[in-house]
Amino acid sequence: MAQAVKLAQNVQAYRLVEKFGIDHLVVSESKPEPIGHGQVRVKMHAASLNYRDLMIVRGEYNPNLRQPTGLVPLSDGAGEVVELGEGVTRFKVGDRVAGLFFQSWLAGECDEQKSKSALAGSIDGVLTTYKVFHEDGLISLPAHLSYEEGATLPCAAVTAWNALIFSGGLRAGETVLTQGTGGVSIFALQFSKITGARVIVISSSDEKLARAEKLGANDLINYKKNPNWEIKVKELTRGRGVDHIVELGGASTLTKSLQAIRLGGQISLIGVLSGKSGEINPVPILMKNVCVQGIYVGSREMFEGMNAAISLHKLHPVIDRVFPFAEAKQAFSYMESSSHLGKIVIKIA
Amino acid sequence: MAQAVKLAQNVQAYRLVEKFGIDHLVVSESKPEPIGHGQVRVKMHAASLNYRDLMIVRGEYNPNLRQPTGLVPLSDGAGEVVELGEGVTRFKVGDRVAGLFFQSWLAGECDEQKSKSALAGSIDGVLTTYKVFHEDGLISLPAHLSYEEGATLPCAAVTAWNALIFSGGLRAGETVLTQGTGGVSIFALQFSKITGARVIVISSSDEKLARAEKLGANDLINYKKNPNWEIKVKELTRGRGVDHIVELGGASTLTKSLQAIRLGGQISLIGVLSGKSGEINPVPILMKNVCVQGIYVGSREMFEGMNAAISLHKLHPVIDRVFPFAEAKQAFSYMESSSHLGKIVIKIA
Amino acid sequence: MAQAVKLAQNVQAYRLVEKFGIDHLVVSESKPEPIGHGQVRVKMHAASLNYRDLMIVRGEYNPNLRQPTGLVPLSDGAGEVVELGEGVTRFKVGDRVAGLFFQSWLAGECDEQKSKSALAGSIDGVLTTYKVFHEDGLISLPAHLSYEEGATLPCAAVTAWNALIFSGGLRAGETVLTQGTGGVSIFALQFSKITGARVIVISSSDEKLARAEKLGANDLINYKKNPNWEIKVKELTRGRGVDHIVELGGASTLTKSLQAIRLGGQISLIGVLSGKSGEINPVPILMKNVCVQGIYVGSREMFEGMNAAISLHKLHPVIDRVFPFAEAKQAFSYMESSSHLGKIVIKIA
Amino acid sequence: MAQAVKLAQNVQAYRLVEKFGIDHLVVSESKPEPIGHGQVRVKMHAASLNYRDLMIVRGEYNPNLRQPTGLVPLSDGAGEVVELGEGVTRFKVGDRVAGLFFQSWLAGECDEQKSKSALAGSIDGVLTTYKVFHEDGLISLPAHLSYEEGATLPCAAVTAWNALIFSGGLRAGETVLTQGTGGVSIFALQFSKITGARVIVISSSDEKLARAEKLGANDLINYKKNPNWEIKVKELTRGRGVDHIVELGGASTLTKSLQAIRLGGQISLIGVLSGKSGEINPVPILMKNVCVQGIYVGSREMFEGMNAAISLHKLHPVIDRVFPFAEAKQAFSYMESSSHLGKIVIKIA
Repeated sequence: MAQAVKLAQNVQAYRLVEKFGIDHLVVSESKPEPIGHGQVRVKMHAASLNYRDLMIVRGEYNPNLRQPTGLVPLSDGAGEVVELGEGVTRFKVGDRVAGLFFQSWLAGECDEQKSKSALAGSIDGVLTTYKVFHEDGLISLPAHLSYEEGATLPCAAVTAWNALIFSGGLRAGETVLTQGTGGVSIFALQFSKITGARVIVISSSDEKLARAEKLGANDLINYKKNPNWEIKVKELTRGRGVDHIVELGGASTLTKSLQAIRLGGQISLIGVLSGKSGEINPVPILMKNVCVQGIYVGSREMFEGMNAAISLHKLHPVIDRVFPFAEAKQAFSYMESSSHLGKIVIKIA
Repeated sequence: MAQAVKLAQNVQAYRLVEKFGIDHLVVSESKPEPIGHGQVRVKMHAASLNYRDLMIVRGEYNPNLRQPTGLVPLSDGAGEVVELGEGVTRFKVGDRVAGLFFQSWLAGECDEQKSKSALAGSIDGVLTTYKVFHEDGLISLPAHLSYEEGATLPCAAVTAWNALIFSGGLRAGETVLTQGTGGVSIFALQFSKITGARVIVISSSDEKLARAEKLGANDLINYKKNPNWEIKVKELTRGRGVDHIVELGGASTLTKSLQAIRLGGQISLIGVLSGKSGEINPVPILMKNVCVQGIYVGSREMFEGMNAAISLHKLHPVIDRVFPFAEAKQAFSYMESSSHLGKIVIKIA
Repeated sequence: MAQAVKLAQNVQAYRLVEKFGIDHLVVSESKPEPIGHGQVRVKMHAASLNYRDLMIVRGEYNPNLRQPTGLVPLSDGAGEVVELGEGVTRFKVGDRVAGLFFQSWLAGECDEQKSKSALAGSIDGVLTTYKVFHEDGLISLPAHLSYEEGATLPCAAVTAWNALIFSGGLRAGETVLTQGTGGVSIFALQFSKITGARVIVISSSDEKLARAEKLGANDLINYKKNPNWEIKVKELTRGRGVDHIVELGGASTLTKSLQAIRLGGQISLIGVLSGKSGEINPVPILMKNVCVQGIYVGSREMFEGMNAAISLHKLHPVIDRVFPFAEAKQAFSYMESSSHLGKIVIKIA
Repeated sequence: MAQAVKLAQNVQAYRLVEKFGIDHLVVSESKPEPIGHGQVRVKMHAASLNYRDLMIVRGEYNPNLRQPTGLVPLSDGAGEVVELGEGVTRFKVGDRVAGLFFQSWLAGECDEQKSKSALAGSIDGVLTTYKVFHEDGLISLPAHLSYEEGATLPCAAVTAWNALIFSGGLRAGETVLTQGTGGVSIFALQFSKITGARVIVISSSDEKLARAEKLGANDLINYKKNPNWEIKVKELTRGRGVDHIVELGGASTLTKSLQAIRLGGQISLIGVLSGKSGEINPVPILMKNVCVQGIYVGSREMFEGMNAAISLHKLHPVIDRVFPFAEAKQAFSYMESSSHLGKIVIKIA
């Protein structure tokens, strides 16, 4: 049963109106919703974009499901607790929090029910000035991070952490290959470095590779100049191949990754970037004892482990550019242009 | 340095002469080879066929590598130790043994060097009356098994064990799907049953399904009659999907398997049966957190664990038909016809 | 905020009044408590005893903590959902359920907060005619089990499952040693058997050993007649030792277990039976690469996996004796006498 | 069969003559032994001491076994390949190598036979000018290490690597506690730091703590000044406890470690330092779901993973002092004094 609403201000939120496409994102205003048992109202300060968000806005995401219009976009956001529902024990007013990508994947394995709790998928996302969360769907921000930085964590960072650290069991001295310089790749680079691994980054841009090098990348390959980058990777590893690949290209690059991976290595399959079917010869998966592990973000338990590492190392997420709330559409267009390195953020308040 | 050769008899072995194809398998006779330090001479009593052997004979196996003609075929065989080289400690004359598929994958992870020690791949196989092994490349047969039964274990049984038990961590109460009724599938069925799992078998033949049921299969699907078997599998599991799939169809069935698997399940990719590239949409791997684990046989350590289980349960491999040594070609042709259930064996002596 | 109370009947519950000791268990009657958001009222039909319950009643449990009197005893119970609070989605009226031992350990690792949610520890237990649970703290009973049988699962069965299957990764063909024939031991025997393991049971009673044999135990040792049972265990395993030990004796038997375990084996430490300090030489833990794994029940996720196995195998918990609600004290005294095999149950209604 | 001996020089080796005790270590000279099939002669350049070596010389090691006198002491040494036996493929003359602690634990799990192959236990150790190894019992040294540094790796470093990285699965952001500043502790500190963990070091000496801090230790506790160091550890971790403890004190400190560890944490039991029985209350192991994992060095596979990390990070083992071959006894006495931090090395040639 809902507590009386204390919030005076109205809520402003972007929604996809009637049709898909960036142009159909419109700000609407509404009365604050009541907060129920165990719920918390958060004043959103920042949100960040993932490629998934662009696909959702374009109507290209998960074609199996009927994707609704009308939803608030963006899964990743951070803000401040401003009001507590009855029975809340995890937070107090003033706490700095981020929302979980999967609101109900708290620990253990994912299941059907948890998988349906993704923000901005079938329920409203965070591109809004205020949002009501169940307290279980929030996590405290590391103290040294700004709201803009905290807003980058829920999807991209947890995905990279799950792929390499939680599921991948990365060890110091191993070699990781990351593809491109988007959000997941740059977090994968950062987490690999603090774990003591060697990192090979491939990208189509020398300028981006130079920036990756500053972030600690050990080896750089421009795959436009070296279309057979998998051969270069084998050379860099004395013919052995790399231990882990953060695979973002889908079917299109998986064939090359299967050449670049070592016997018994792990390819973490993340990329919905390409999103389409492709010709794959699965024989190398078998002949090389490779594990192709699908990684779809992760649980709050993983998020907590990741935050401990981020806090200990005073790690700062790499933000490419921050757009004001009023220019949210430009943020989507900027992501479309693929010119960013790291995360694109929208400052809400 | 080699010990004096005690063996009086000549050795008879099949070899692929000049060209690929079953018709080019010819028996040749040669003097017994000397046995060196740590080596053991085995009088081969039986060998068994895997689909890989048929591909090798046809010249279709691993097209990346230049596959040589002239090799003795078949990786899986069992026999009796008849002579010991200097320094041998693991065996004595009279011991009943099988050869490892990978002669030097004893324990731990596979690596480049171990992966090159597969019998009948780049080194001679076991379709021969006598064969010299390094003692490390042999394992004792479970006492209750005949040589014909023991000869079925090295590739198909170890593959199924690795997929489900060693790598897969199968638990009682979980559900396994196996495709078809070849050697790996039937071992997967047997190992799943002793581990307390539920097994769904799909096959194109009602008669084979009936035999699988006698071996303990809980649910049977004729995929010719139910081409959308993945939907049937979802129904049988109340919409949840199965925990493990022993995938033998390669690209052609993987797409359906990705529908039939549960969130977070494991698909053990084994089948070189199709062996060709195919259109795969990798998105479900990601969205369902699936692990697609390539399984290429396994180590002696896994073989030992498997033998302990086979011994405890007095498990008998399922042999479809035994051919005499003189009719080895017919055995290959019989495999080609795909009418078998379980293993095809050649009795050597 | 609480829903209106529909329950007309008063609640009858045992409580420890003022002092510790079985004699101080007294039935008290109270008005039904209101049910809040997400809560469920369960009409309790049966409860079962664990040794922990006896220690709690005696005031011997966890001497570090100030243990309160006044609590309702027993952690394990089963019943029927009779009333739903607001927002409940997991259950409907009429569902047959058991309560989780740790009300908030749903999945993943245990933590400080979850560890404080054990029933009958610092919060009321289940020896009551009605009890209000949060819906997350309940699990559906396997359909083939009676309430009496279902009431045996939450502590003893989940502990055995966690020890051997979830944490222990038991494989078919491995050997398990269980100590005694109490609740955990008998479940360990049953779960080992469906997983295809060999089981050695040690007990002080030939009669109990005979009953364990009927339940599938492969080898039996009377440790009164064979005080050096660890030597017998080594013989039974050809000098190798067993793969897993379900250790219930604490310091007093751990030294022998460290002789009986194989190199690299796992000893699941469960027994608070002895509960006291003892002289241990930790060197064998080190020299044999042994894992001594503390097991304190487990999560709902483990419980669900266990229930799937129990349902598939139509497994029935072994109940030694059922006492009526009015004779609950006799049930405690009976446990004190140590003459039971399997579980002691109290039928509530 | 042995190759002709090419080595002209005689071999000088320390041996324990007739009685135990440092004073009974005597250099003896002998003709070079022949090298057999698969063997390699190594000119030893350096050896290092472990506490086990001191116990062996004192006759205090593994009292269960009849420990022989007459053996060459020290398990850890490094040198140069000077001669190859027949059939050697892993090394060539001139290669820089270290010997494995367990000569035949190459990969996978340890077993009875592998466990009997420890150098200086039941077979001769490395305090000798030349030694014949089977090629499988050697590993290449990281290129940036001197022989003195390489000689520190086989026991202490592999033990720390196995405890924290291989078995322990340490993750960035976790907290490790190491006890003292001996060889294993300092390697544990170094490996924890490159893996991104936080490290708490306890020691009886402020001066040693200051040196540990220079090596990266995050928190320092003098356990002489803070005998209740476990309380301090809880404070440093906000009451949660540490994730991993490298336990070197045996029974004497294990009780405190069980207070300092977090719920579900791992205590790697390593210390034969105390070596004696002690009073332990095992209840906290159970109540906290702790894993007490015995760690007895490790396999070549682990050593290879560790060397990759050491090479990538250009890590240098911490050597306290180097003694010349002629002063080997002083090296043992120096270890007895416990005044060292890191490793004590003997330069052989």
